[in-house]
Amino acid sequence: MKVAIILFENFETLDVFGPVEIIGRLPQYFEMEYYSFRGGTISSTQGVKINTKKLDSTTILSDILVIPGGIGTRTEIENQAFIDLLQQVAASSQYVLTVCTGSALLAKTGWLDHKKATSNKRAWSWVTSVNQQVKWQKKARWTVDGKYYTSSGISAGMDMTLGFVADLLGEAKANQIALEMEYEWNNNPENDNFAYIYPHEK
Amino acid sequence: MKVAIILFENFETLDVFGPVEIIGRLPQYFEMEYYSFRGGTISSTQGVKINTKKLDSTTILSDILVIPGGIGTRTEIENQAFIDLLQQVAASSQYVLTVCTGSALLAKTGWLDHKKATSNKRAWSWVTSVNQQVKWQKKARWTVDGKYYTSSGISAGMDMTLGFVADLLGEAKANQIALEMEYEWNNNPENDNFAYIYPHEK
Repeated sequence: MKVAIILFENFETLDVFGPVEIIGRLPQYFEMEYYSFRGGTISSTQGVKINTKKLDSTTILSDILVIPGGIGTRTEIENQAFIDLLQQVAASSQYVLTVCTGSALLAKTGWLDHKKATSNKRAWSWVTSVNQQVKWQKKARWTVDGKYYTSSGISAGMDMTLGFVADLLGEAKANQIALEMEYEWNNNPENDNFAYIYPHEK
Repeated sequence: MKVAIILFENFETLDVFGPVEIIGRLPQYFEMEYYSFRGGTISSTQGVKINTKKLDSTTILSDILVIPGGIGTRTEIENQAFIDLLQQVAASSQYVLTVCTGSALLAKTGWLDHKKATSNKRAWSWVTSVNQQVKWQKKARWTVDGKYYTSSGISAGMDMTLGFVADLLGEAKANQIALEMEYEWNNNPENDNFAYIYPHEK
């Protein structure tokens, strides 16, 4: 399966490379490619520079679309041409995975309307304000609704991606990868210790 | 403080970008740069391509040296010129942090002799065979001995880096970053649930 990872300036490093570590351990199943609106080199907020292909609406990009979060989502949400492209490529993808505030971008396309989704708890007011048609789930490490997987903040993307691997290839495979990474997988999407830590984020 | 991250072909993705996520959240304290033996583009086992500067023994590279692990360490350990360079740059660094099998490379330089260190539990026999003068600690999420920090496998690098931040800037700062990442920090270096999962790795 082809995995298209959508980057933009000031994406969050671990939002991308947590899932990439996991997906990249299964090269027999998944092939990853990085895309961005304009193509070329894109930098994370933490300064990681990645070369990307240009997003193209005329091509079916992928079986699996990955949309990270990061402070850059605040800019991208205003880029209607990017959101329109994202809407088209999400439509043609078998699965769409968002990490952190990446769910704000997907919510903006309309594809999350009347669907369950979550996001970073520190940016909750902003993300939920983007689209109130979404059934936002505050207490959730990650959510699954049809083909849409959304995760909470940053490191939750790893738990979600392991959950996605479990759904696709079985729990044993996900457990094996977590073990290889010496990672204590929170494998219960409802187990979220960060849901209520920011009283002002309602 | 300048942070030099040493890359080589087939480094492990999360070994690098877990710590980078954490260090990159403190741009007021840390400035990161990527280096490799030959310079140029270096790819992780999971296909992440990073542009690097050439390692140079005549320059003091950094205050902090970060050495990741990955399957590429098996090749690099045979590259004596690289090990010699690593020995020189480690000598001139204020701190040296290794993740996963990165400790095998540092052990090869001799700087870990008679010092406590740990590594990936799945590669334990190999890593410890590299240098038996090291006081290898099997049950350890990470170790600190003087200026040397070493972590267990892959995701343990994040726990160690948060521990390093706590040592340098205080526990509150490390806790704040973990919270921002929605990351359940294992903040006890002796709490290692992966120490004895591979019976054949003695």
